[in-house]
Amino acid sequence: MSNELTYAVIMAGGAGTRFWPLSRNAFPKQLVKIVGDTTMIQATVARLQPLIPAERVLVITTAALAAETRRQLPMVRPEHVIAEPVGRDTAACVCLAALVVEKLSPGATMILLPADQVIKPADHFQKALAAGIDVARTGALVTYGITPRFPATGYGYIKLAARLADVGGVAINRVLGFVEKPDENTAKRYLSEGGYRWNSGIFTWRSDVVLSELETHCTWLTTALQPVGEAFGTPDFERVLNEVYQPLKKISIDYALMEKAANICVVTADFTWDDVGSWDSLYDHLPVDAQGVIARGDVLALDCRDSLLISESGQTVVGIGLHDLTVVATKDAILIVPKGRSQQVKQAVDALKAKGRNELL
Amino acid sequence: MSNELTYAVIMAGGAGTRFWPLSRNAFPKQLVKIVGDTTMIQATVARLQPLIPAERVLVITTAALAAETRRQLPMVRPEHVIAEPVGRDTAACVCLAALVVEKLSPGATMILLPADQVIKPADHFQKALAAGIDVARTGALVTYGITPRFPATGYGYIKLAARLADVGGVAINRVLGFVEKPDENTAKRYLSEGGYRWNSGIFTWRSDVVLSELETHCTWLTTALQPVGEAFGTPDFERVLNEVYQPLKKISIDYALMEKAANICVVTADFTWDDVGSWDSLYDHLPVDAQGVIARGDVLALDCRDSLLISESGQTVVGIGLHDLTVVATKDAILIVPKGRSQQVKQAVDALKAKGRNELL
Repeated sequence: MSNELTYAVIMAGGAGTRFWPLSRNAFPKQLVKIVGDTTMIQATVARLQPLIPAERVLVITTAALAAETRRQLPMVRPEHVIAEPVGRDTAACVCLAALVVEKLSPGATMILLPADQVIKPADHFQKALAAGIDVARTGALVTYGITPRFPATGYGYIKLAARLADVGGVAINRVLGFVEKPDENTAKRYLSEGGYRWNSGIFTWRSDVVLSELETHCTWLTTALQPVGEAFGTPDFERVLNEVYQPLKKISIDYALMEKAANICVVTADFTWDDVGSWDSLYDHLPVDAQGVIARGDVLALDCRDSLLISESGQTVVGIGLHDLTVVATKDAILIVPKGRSQQVKQAVDALKAKGRNELL
Repeated sequence: MSNELTYAVIMAGGAGTRFWPLSRNAFPKQLVKIVGDTTMIQATVARLQPLIPAERVLVITTAALAAETRRQLPMVRPEHVIAEPVGRDTAACVCLAALVVEKLSPGATMILLPADQVIKPADHFQKALAAGIDVARTGALVTYGITPRFPATGYGYIKLAARLADVGGVAINRVLGFVEKPDENTAKRYLSEGGYRWNSGIFTWRSDVVLSELETHCTWLTTALQPVGEAFGTPDFERVLNEVYQPLKKISIDYALMEKAANICVVTADFTWDDVGSWDSLYDHLPVDAQGVIARGDVLALDCRDSLLISESGQTVVGIGLHDLTVVATKDAILIVPKGRSQQVKQAVDALKAKGRNELL
């Protein structure tokens, strides 16, 4: 049974260290201003307007982040910000979200999306979502695929099958299969062969449909979580959620469902998409001067090029003759790392952790 | 008329921007910890012990720096820290110092030395000074020359004449002449020809001798400053100093005296000497690890080499994959500059000044 309402469920429990020192345990990527004047989760909610009004936005996050998430999203109902007691991978998160949506409005459509992606422009995004919603209402599981721009090894890929429809210029295909993050040669082959899309991690389906599919392909999960749907909106919710969540096995939605289900469609995205996985990715998203320098905060760049200089500490950052360097100054920590090595930030954070420098994490 | 006492006069009025952001207008190089655990002026006083006891140390500085200088040198008599009302170059400073020493102890010997040089070891330094004092007591003007290690273009040179004496292994020569900072080819020629010394800016002479020489070669200066010597030790000193100093023309001791006087000797220094003119010069003076990294303060250097990382701000500085880079973090400013370009720090300071950022200067 379908209805006309669509909810958006923002998955916002991520930790991540790749934007250290700007992001921290208590302020992961989605809760800080990486790009633009709002935090990434605020931008994610704003980008859904007016397609999904804020009263139909839900957020799944962690207990540690729930208070700050509610503070940043005053337009979202506090009880719609749901804290997972522990992380149990994406299948549990999706099942929890579907049970909540089904309780709120049986048969509603729901969009699942990460809180920490850069997507623009909003109108193209909403047009693609709207096309996906139309298809999802017929009972399909809808994914969104990004046309590969380079042989990325950091994303999963979706292999396209036959074109199903073209909804107002938005291409919708059946899916032949999902493939995990490929090695570089495989990624190059995907790019030259064509017919592949990056898996954006955005989904749309009806709550009743996804629960039925999960019951078929991952019965233990729906069985275990069933009491949560019943408890949502009652004083027992938190206790029940904790009880059923703790013993769950971790399993991803890709493995639990997407690689097994039939009737999966992919909407080819007509928008710019980036999951901004490192400092280096910001060179594509922040305003750059003629010398390729991105400066944020109180920065003096003399004779610099192709560098990213961020002062969030109130200090004046003075760079002289810098090339291909990222400098990020926060109140208690300063990072200096050459462009192209920002994947190593994680190692630095691990080293700080090993030294017991928990105040910096 | 000579006596047995020797005074040291430390010239400590320098401003300088080359160690920004560690050094500032109110805390120039000599008043900060550039090398080691004490400030450069504290190290300069300590290095004279026991040859020149602190009660015979005088300091010539500026009005703006006098209070901090006295605070850092509690062992020096407050009235021995003399503030020039305005800077009038080195000849005026030397004449002022000689008048004061002559008032304190007619015919005493005086060592003039900058406050901001790295010199080690102290015993070699004192041995050279002692040899110079012996010669100065005979009425000579004594300079100290450093055997050139490379074709430096940033120092003046002294051309040696005949060997005069060898005092306990310390070579003393007559001086053929002084030459200003040479261009690179000339500096290379000096180095290959031999017989040249870098001019260390350290002098030793009797107060009565230098005053007599100045009277001969720069009469207007001794005439103008005469009232200062008479006023030293009286309540009128500051007023008189101000009155006579303001109208003085600027002239260097090299130009006013050294290039004209006869009877100049040079002691070849048997000590390590560096006037540490830039961040780059610190690579020679601070403890370096196996990768050539110098870390001071809370620093984590991952996979870095040949870099200088200083945190004076309390922040943790994390460098990843850095090569030949200097990073200096202070409370309100952070400098990042590649090795070999630290001469450009002055340009950055000028740019801040042009922007009216006086709080950073």
